[in-house]
Amino acid sequence: MTYCLGISVKEGLVLAADSRTNAGVDYISSYQKLFDFSLPGERVLVACTSGNLSVTQAVVHELGQDIKMGASESLHSISTMYAVARYIGQKIRNIQKEDRTWLDQDGIKFQCNFLVGGQLPGEPPEVYLIYSQGNCIQATPETPFLQIGETKYGKPILDRTITYDSSLDAIAKCALLSIDSTMRSNISVGPPINMVLYEADSYEIRHRVQLQSSDPYLAKIRKYWESTLREATQNMPEPEWNRVSIDAEPDFSLE
Amino acid sequence: MTYCLGISVKEGLVLAADSRTNAGVDYISSYQKLFDFSLPGERVLVACTSGNLSVTQAVVHELGQDIKMGASESLHSISTMYAVARYIGQKIRNIQKEDRTWLDQDGIKFQCNFLVGGQLPGEPPEVYLIYSQGNCIQATPETPFLQIGETKYGKPILDRTITYDSSLDAIAKCALLSIDSTMRSNISVGPPINMVLYEADSYEIRHRVQLQSSDPYLAKIRKYWESTLREATQNMPEPEWNRVSIDAEPDFSLE
Repeated sequence: MTYCLGISVKEGLVLAADSRTNAGVDYISSYQKLFDFSLPGERVLVACTSGNLSVTQAVVHELGQDIKMGASESLHSISTMYAVARYIGQKIRNIQKEDRTWLDQDGIKFQCNFLVGGQLPGEPPEVYLIYSQGNCIQATPETPFLQIGETKYGKPILDRTITYDSSLDAIAKCALLSIDSTMRSNISVGPPINMVLYEADSYEIRHRVQLQSSDPYLAKIRKYWESTLREATQNMPEPEWNRVSIDAEPDFSLE
Repeated sequence: MTYCLGISVKEGLVLAADSRTNAGVDYISSYQKLFDFSLPGERVLVACTSGNLSVTQAVVHELGQDIKMGASESLHSISTMYAVARYIGQKIRNIQKEDRTWLDQDGIKFQCNFLVGGQLPGEPPEVYLIYSQGNCIQATPETPFLQIGETKYGKPILDRTITYDSSLDAIAKCALLSIDSTMRSNISVGPPINMVLYEADSYEIRHRVQLQSSDPYLAKIRKYWESTLREATQNMPEPEWNRVSIDAEPDFSLE
């Protein structure tokens, strides 16, 4: 599996990804899942990937090739974020045309998801999720984050803390906690964690970080978070016990 | 779906369950998932259920019938927790024998999980998870909690806070948060929440609670928890940005 996260708030964007790829539990390895295609000063474009590694690598390769070859349509030439999302979707569909039948006949799922976030001239910063089928959805102020991969473990902290008005700084820390909680609870998600923070209208990524499992900061926030949660549960008000009694007898007796 | 939780620590046990049953998202209803089969003063036995409702209801009905009929083997006569777990497993297998082929032929999964926790004379308190296949596993000091149903959302908080030495009071609050976080993030888990707290060697459940969605306590802890998490992320140390740069070029270029 993998876990990637794209968050779009008033102040800007945060994109983050783990680096684990696994085929079952007995083949686990590390691959970069976050790629920066920005042109500093002109446009910011960051993509995260999950799903079948051969598919996502092929798509990322194609994205890189179009830029290298100066193709008329590339991440360095397309003028809207929506068009960027559709363009990536088209790349996914092209790989499907090539590989799908070969994967299907051996029961291998053609499955991949992309997150792409950034800002193009004259547009606000945006984040899109692109599906295996090539269609896409966009993060909105009501739902400012999009997740791909192993999304469940890390969702509650996002649901509980993130709003469109949250500060970028707080969002970045939430994203790290969301990924770290997932790593803690599921071996299919693992370090290093790559994260970028983008301030709206700066057209340049000024904050990026890569955290290895051995990183002292990661150890520090883990310790901090666990002690904080412990303390918070200790101080939480107690339930009023014994306001009801729960029946031994099922109330749906079949007799 | 459903989400149930059984926790076994030094001081005793906590069992908790939501009450949601859904067939897809367009048929959602409430059923009790936590059943108390205790004989106060003699034995404590609490079961939680997840999976196919027709299967779990049939098993719970059988468990009740054996008690009513004074069967030689019942939850009021069996003398070890392990034997109780195997006995429930046998009930599941009996229903499989009856229903399995009929469900299979229409592509309906025969799937159910049980948690059973309690204490029988001369034994420590124990919690078991019983699978659809009738086999079982037990919670241990290294892994003091067992989950069934929609388990992922609520796992990080347990992983981060619960140890075998945690106080029952803290465990109960963690269990509520774990279930409430799941309800917040996934509509297939819903109120009322039923929870029992059992103090080791008391042979009597003295603490039980049922929380409806409208319960002011549930509203209070939600507010408390969200503000606590927000504050905690605010106060969390910042990452050291820009210690690495993330390549635009995939390092696995296919050329």
